[in-house]
Amino acid sequence: MMEITSYTIEALARIRQNAPLIHNITNYVVMNSSANILLATGASPVMAHCRSEVEEMTSLSSALVLNIGTLQEDWLESMLLAAKVANSKGISVILDPVGAGATRLRTQAVKTLLDTGFITVLRGNCSEILSLVSSDITTRGVDTSLSLSDGLVQAAKQLAVDQECIVAISGEIDCITDGTRVFRVENGQPMMTRVTGSGCGLTAVTGAFCAVATEGDLTMATAAAFGFYGLCGDLAIKKSDKPGSFYVAFLDQLYAVGSEEIKRYLRVRLAF
Amino acid sequence: MMEITSYTIEALARIRQNAPLIHNITNYVVMNSSANILLATGASPVMAHCRSEVEEMTSLSSALVLNIGTLQEDWLESMLLAAKVANSKGISVILDPVGAGATRLRTQAVKTLLDTGFITVLRGNCSEILSLVSSDITTRGVDTSLSLSDGLVQAAKQLAVDQECIVAISGEIDCITDGTRVFRVENGQPMMTRVTGSGCGLTAVTGAFCAVATEGDLTMATAAAFGFYGLCGDLAIKKSDKPGSFYVAFLDQLYAVGSEEIKRYLRVRLAF
Amino acid sequence: MMEITSYTIEALARIRQNAPLIHNITNYVVMNSSANILLATGASPVMAHCRSEVEEMTSLSSALVLNIGTLQEDWLESMLLAAKVANSKGISVILDPVGAGATRLRTQAVKTLLDTGFITVLRGNCSEILSLVSSDITTRGVDTSLSLSDGLVQAAKQLAVDQECIVAISGEIDCITDGTRVFRVENGQPMMTRVTGSGCGLTAVTGAFCAVATEGDLTMATAAAFGFYGLCGDLAIKKSDKPGSFYVAFLDQLYAVGSEEIKRYLRVRLAF
Repeated sequence: MMEITSYTIEALARIRQNAPLIHNITNYVVMNSSANILLATGASPVMAHCRSEVEEMTSLSSALVLNIGTLQEDWLESMLLAAKVANSKGISVILDPVGAGATRLRTQAVKTLLDTGFITVLRGNCSEILSLVSSDITTRGVDTSLSLSDGLVQAAKQLAVDQECIVAISGEIDCITDGTRVFRVENGQPMMTRVTGSGCGLTAVTGAFCAVATEGDLTMATAAAFGFYGLCGDLAIKKSDKPGSFYVAFLDQLYAVGSEEIKRYLRVRLAF
Repeated sequence: MMEITSYTIEALARIRQNAPLIHNITNYVVMNSSANILLATGASPVMAHCRSEVEEMTSLSSALVLNIGTLQEDWLESMLLAAKVANSKGISVILDPVGAGATRLRTQAVKTLLDTGFITVLRGNCSEILSLVSSDITTRGVDTSLSLSDGLVQAAKQLAVDQECIVAISGEIDCITDGTRVFRVENGQPMMTRVTGSGCGLTAVTGAFCAVATEGDLTMATAAAFGFYGLCGDLAIKKSDKPGSFYVAFLDQLYAVGSEEIKRYLRVRLAF
Repeated sequence: MMEITSYTIEALARIRQNAPLIHNITNYVVMNSSANILLATGASPVMAHCRSEVEEMTSLSSALVLNIGTLQEDWLESMLLAAKVANSKGISVILDPVGAGATRLRTQAVKTLLDTGFITVLRGNCSEILSLVSSDITTRGVDTSLSLSDGLVQAAKQLAVDQECIVAISGEIDCITDGTRVFRVENGQPMMTRVTGSGCGLTAVTGAFCAVATEGDLTMATAAAFGFYGLCGDLAIKKSDKPGSFYVAFLDQLYAVGSEEIKRYLRVRLAF
C-alpha cells in the first residue's frame, strides 16, 4: 500500500490536472458551498436532480455525490436512477446521510440507498452513522454532538462489512473504515461545524478523490480526502478563528495547499 | 420587566450554551445564509420542507421559522403542518412575509398562516407589513423603501392586536410591538440591505431568541434579537463598508460579540 | 453610437439610482450569489418561480433573467409564462443556457425558450453556445474549456441572426454580437471560473444593464455589462488570487467601482 502522504499529494495533483466532473444530487442549503468547495479543490461540479436528466449527467461524470438534506421523495427517485448508472459505469457513489435518525423519511432513504448495493462511501457524523446501526438513537437533525468511541469504530466496521461499503465518520477525530482497515484522521477544526455545509463539502471532496483513484484503493482515497480537507481547516484557523472569515480562508486553502503543507501537516494514520 | 441589555446578554448566553434547534422552512435564496447566521449566533439550524418529515422535525425543535420567499403551494401545506405541531408543542413560530403585497400567492399565504392563530412573531419590512394592513399597497417584491412613521407604528399595533401576535418591522429604526408595548431599535446599518437574506437571517435569529425565552416574554426576546443583530451590523460596518467583506465581518460579529459590546452599543428602548 | 466607456458609466449610474427590479427564475446553486451580485451592483433582485405568481412578478419588474441550471419541467413552464409577460411589457429577457449540450432536457429547454422569440440576450460560455449551433458537440455540463475562435464568432453571429437575439459568449475574451456588430471584451479573470455562479451572475447583471437601457441599444448594454463585470474581476484579483477571498473582493468591487476605474480599465471594443 502506498504511503498516505504521497498518495494525498498525487491524488490532489490529479484532481487539479483533470478537473473531474462530480455530479451532485444534494440539498438546497449547500449547493452553492459544495460547488465552491469542489471548484476551489480543482474539481468540476455539476448539480442536477431532475429525473429526466440525471442519468445522462451521471454518465458524463467521474463520481456521483448523493446527499439527503432537504430531501423530497422525487429526489430520492432521481438518486436511485443516477446511482444505477454510476454503478454500471463503475464510478464511485458517495452518500451523505444528513439528518439520518432525525426523521423516518431520512433514515428510510439512507437504508433504501444502501440496499441498492451501489454506495461506495457512506460519509456522516457520529450520530447519523449510529442511527443506521441502532434504532435506539434519535439524532437532532444535523447534530454533531456524539464523539468517536471504540464502540462506534466497531459499529462502523460492522456496518462497512454488512453494507459492503466504506464508512467514513467525521468528528473531532475522523474514522474511515472498509471493515478491515481503519484510518484515523486528526486534521480538522471544531470551527468547521460552525459553517453550514462543511460536512457536505467533505462528502463532495471525497467524491473528487474517489474520481481520480485510478488504482482503485477507495478507502485510501477517502482517507486522503479527509486528511486534505481537515488540513485546510487547520491552516484556515490560523488566518481566522471566526466563522465568516474562517470559511473564506478555508476556500482559499483548498485552492492553495501544496505538497509542502501536506507533507508537514497531514495527520492520517492507519490503525487496524 | 427585566432590563433589555441584561436580557439580551443572558438570552445570547443561553443560545450559545444550549444551541437550540431551529427548524426553518425557508426560501432557496437564503437557506445557506440563514443556516450560517444561526450557526454563528450559536443556534443549531435545520432546514426541512417535505410534508412527510416536517412534523417530526418540528417536534424535535425549539422554534419554527417560516419564510415565504420562493414559495410554492406544497411548501405552504408543509408550513401549516409544522405550525400546528409547533403550536401544540408550545414553541414559537416566526413568520417572514417576504414579498407580501407583490403577488396574490404571497399575500394570501401570509393571511392563511396568520389565520391559523399559530404565528408568534411576524417579522417583515415596512412595505410587507403595510400590505397586510391595507390592500392599497403594492410592494416591489422585497422592497425596503418605505420607512417607519407614527402611522405605521399604529397600524402595527392594531395588526398585533387583531392577529394576537408580535409584529416586528425592520427598517432604519426597527419597531417591535405586541399591541401594548413598543420597542424601538436603533441598531443596524443600511449596508445590511445590500446583502441578500439579511432580513431573513434576522427572522431566523428571532427564532433563536424566542427558543430560549424561558420566562416567556417573547416581545422582549424579539426586541433583543433585533438589537443584537443590528449591533453586529454596527460593528461590522467598522470593518468594511462594502457588501462582500461586510457580510463576512457581520458573520464574525454574530459569533464574537460579547457582554461588553452589548452593554456599550445596544440601542433598544421601550416606547409605549 | 455612444462611446462604450461613457455608456457604461451612465448605465451603471442609472442602475444605482433606480435600483431596477430584476426578476430571476434561476437555479438553486446561484440564487444567493446572483441576488448578492445584483444588490452589490445596485439593482434589486427578486427570485420567484411558482407558476401562480411569476406573471405578476414579471409585470412588476424591469428585466427577466432565465437560467436553466438545476432545471425541472415545471420551472420551464413558469419561464415561458414569465417570458410572455416580459415580451408584452417590452422588457428584456436574458437567457443563460447552463449546461446546454450536456443533457437533452437542457438543450431542448433552451431551444423551446429561443423558439418563443421572446429572448433578448442569450448569455453562455463557448461550449454551451456551440451546442446550440451544432449537435455534434457534447459539453461537460458547465464546462468552460472551449475558447473563442473566429469560427465561433461567425457561428454566434449566425445564431443571433437566426434567433433574432443578442448572443453573448463568455470566455478569456468575451464576444457580444447582434448579428451585425461584434463587441469584444478583454476584461475578466480566469479566477472567476473557480467561483460558482460567476457566469450566472453576469447574466443577471446583463439583465440590470438592459433594464436601464432606455435608449434601447441592448447590444451596447450587454457589452457594457460584460466590461463592467470583468473589470470588477480585474480589480478583485489585485486584492486576492485565491477563490474565497477573490469572491469577497469581487462583490466589494461591484459595489465600489466608479467612473475613474471604468475610464481607466474598461477593455471593450467594437470589432465588426
